[in-house]
Amino acid sequence: MNIRFYNARILTMDGNFDITEGELWVEGKKISYIGPSKAPEEVDKVEWDRQIDAQRNLLMPGFKDAHTHTAMTFLRSYADDLPLQDWLNKQVFPKEALLTGEDIYFLTKHGILEYLTSGITAAFDMYMHTDQIAKAAVESGFRMVQVGAINDFGGTLEECEQDYLRLNSYNELSSYMFGFHAEYTTKRDTMRGLAALAERYHAPIYMHNSETKAEVEGCIQRYGLTPTQLFDELGIFEYGGGGFHCVWMDQKDLDIYKEKGLYAVTNPASNMKLASGIAPIQKMLDMGITVAIGTDGAASNNCLDMFREMFLVTGLAKLREKDASAVDAREVLKMATVNGAHAMGLDDCDVLAEGKYADIIMIDMHQPNMQPENNIVKNIVYAGSKQNVKMTMINGYIVYEDGRFDVGEDPEFLYDKANSIIQRMIQQSKNA
Amino acid sequence: MNIRFYNARILTMDGNFDITEGELWVEGKKISYIGPSKAPEEVDKVEWDRQIDAQRNLLMPGFKDAHTHTAMTFLRSYADDLPLQDWLNKQVFPKEALLTGEDIYFLTKHGILEYLTSGITAAFDMYMHTDQIAKAAVESGFRMVQVGAINDFGGTLEECEQDYLRLNSYNELSSYMFGFHAEYTTKRDTMRGLAALAERYHAPIYMHNSETKAEVEGCIQRYGLTPTQLFDELGIFEYGGGGFHCVWMDQKDLDIYKEKGLYAVTNPASNMKLASGIAPIQKMLDMGITVAIGTDGAASNNCLDMFREMFLVTGLAKLREKDASAVDAREVLKMATVNGAHAMGLDDCDVLAEGKYADIIMIDMHQPNMQPENNIVKNIVYAGSKQNVKMTMINGYIVYEDGRFDVGEDPEFLYDKANSIIQRMIQQSKNA
Repeated sequence: MNIRFYNARILTMDGNFDITEGELWVEGKKISYIGPSKAPEEVDKVEWDRQIDAQRNLLMPGFKDAHTHTAMTFLRSYADDLPLQDWLNKQVFPKEALLTGEDIYFLTKHGILEYLTSGITAAFDMYMHTDQIAKAAVESGFRMVQVGAINDFGGTLEECEQDYLRLNSYNELSSYMFGFHAEYTTKRDTMRGLAALAERYHAPIYMHNSETKAEVEGCIQRYGLTPTQLFDELGIFEYGGGGFHCVWMDQKDLDIYKEKGLYAVTNPASNMKLASGIAPIQKMLDMGITVAIGTDGAASNNCLDMFREMFLVTGLAKLREKDASAVDAREVLKMATVNGAHAMGLDDCDVLAEGKYADIIMIDMHQPNMQPENNIVKNIVYAGSKQNVKMTMINGYIVYEDGRFDVGEDPEFLYDKANSIIQRMIQQSKNA
Repeated sequence: MNIRFYNARILTMDGNFDITEGELWVEGKKISYIGPSKAPEEVDKVEWDRQIDAQRNLLMPGFKDAHTHTAMTFLRSYADDLPLQDWLNKQVFPKEALLTGEDIYFLTKHGILEYLTSGITAAFDMYMHTDQIAKAAVESGFRMVQVGAINDFGGTLEECEQDYLRLNSYNELSSYMFGFHAEYTTKRDTMRGLAALAERYHAPIYMHNSETKAEVEGCIQRYGLTPTQLFDELGIFEYGGGGFHCVWMDQKDLDIYKEKGLYAVTNPASNMKLASGIAPIQKMLDMGITVAIGTDGAASNNCLDMFREMFLVTGLAKLREKDASAVDAREVLKMATVNGAHAMGLDDCDVLAEGKYADIIMIDMHQPNMQPENNIVKNIVYAGSKQNVKMTMINGYIVYEDGRFDVGEDPEFLYDKANSIIQRMIQQSKNA
């Protein structure tokens, strides 16, 4: 498909926050031109499938959800208002034990719909039945980077390696990075085994890290080290990677992140809702640590919305630092797009530029919350909402436009599936 | 207009959180029927202007924005990332001094558009040029409760009384309550004068109260009392009322709120963005103090979105209390609807019931973030967004539906106005 957007404003995020007026061409899966309006004879040289009047709306890179568990939509609003360990052990794990591969296939498709409404064009997904997830993503036209979730209750190192090889060659919309669930669920031998895999493939490793105070205290009791320091000692970070949540980080932990060039993926809504705490984002920025943003799963958040997360990243930092100038909106927009892409290994769709994959969203500027235009970047971060997502394009294909999905599946069918899956589980639990 | 909604789910908020299936009739400005489906011969007895298939979407009371400065949309994203006193003194006050009545008329209309996208059917608005605000609201079909903003820099007690008499008889969409800006901007004599007015009309009084730590400390330095205790001593609360923000409240302050039946209106996004702090909402609930929710103005928030506020009320409470079970979602939904209505004196449009004014919104359940339906109320509070507002009806009239406004004014015209007003001010400041 060749698609020409004209009469557009364009925020490329390529090195600065300038917004230019003009047009953007997508030929096949990639961006072929960004710049001033072209003369008609130049335009006519390409055989266009669509020429879209952007009506001075804003084209920008799609958001990258750098930590999530997509298929957990089935637990949305099922067990709220519980502390993390209770929530995880009494509600989440028992229900997850009842999930089939087919469940995860449909629930992933359901979660993808929600990403698209929020302009999220790629997700860094940690879950199980990885083949079903990849299939659901590719069929939906969604870019899915999976990360290993091995722990003492599931997965083997062999499977991790097989996933690495298979999911990185399955389809251009699918990729995979090494990872494990968390320190408190994973034996050191397993972590050492992963470090050996990372060594073999020169690959980064990711995991839940220092989400709660109790998690860090438990690790110190077990090993005399914080999780970050333990991982570092085990050689986990020799080829980069990073952690999800990163709320309870001490100076030495942050030094390791800085020194090893690790990504700190923050999940403010989930950390707030589970009362886990506020991550030290301003300090990370001051130290030059790269921060990305994730929604976490719908069981804890309870929605997959990058606008909510962006506002919280800066808002909670302002509260934490008692300083209204903490964490500038522009940094936040970079976290939600470029930094997320880099954390996920998506260097080919991080910014808008010629030759990059066309993972693009259109922000509706003709909504009251985007006016006046004193500062468009701040409008997006401080006032934006899903209602402003007019279009979501992934890999050159428009998968969401004006509230309609083009993902090869009827949303109502997926909603029915989600409802029947959780209902079946409730019945299974009763019968058990 | 007579409008029949059928095939609906209905959350009346009338005493409980039950959701019933059936239909809801609006005849003229009021709700005439809520209940099971009616037989065709019963339906045909009414001459309907529209019969709307709700497609099993949810009808519920519109949100009440219980503290805002609607016309401040012109300062959206203009001066972010500053502490409150700098923001107020160096950015807000100088620009506000340049506002004309006509500016406020157009900016109020602009802000109203934003309310409608978020399902907000009434606002408790504190600003100036009150006649222009009332005119803008009535012309837009929006329910506006104004509250006095008298302070040492503007307004007289005579004007307060005139506003009270005039705006409470101008139009059924307009009403007015006594109020003053805040302790730190208002002489005690003025407060005493207002207390005398409240006495004359047996009327409640509202004001900004204990928004920042510095504000409370300053008041204690000046008078040896917290703002709440000072107001109480001055007789401000003899006929009820309440405060906006209420972040830095001590036990004695809360006791006064409880004892006098005052409303605490919380503004979590604004308090977060200006690094003012987190209000003690759980404690208020434990004590039986009635809490309502406001967005504050778009200069500090920066958007007028009740979904954002609802999530923050409970999320920030969970952080503050270090307890993921703090402030249940159902309480929050009540704050955003029923409690707000009562704080604003809108007892006739607080819940959905026969005889109440038809201030109704329709929540789009056919969106991925509202599925599965494990708990619809929690879905709304924890996962809802403006994208879920399918319709906003005020006083029996549909002012917003499927993204289109019916407010007698072209949104683009209002956006142009908002942009030209702030541009003119920037020019005026340069020329000064």
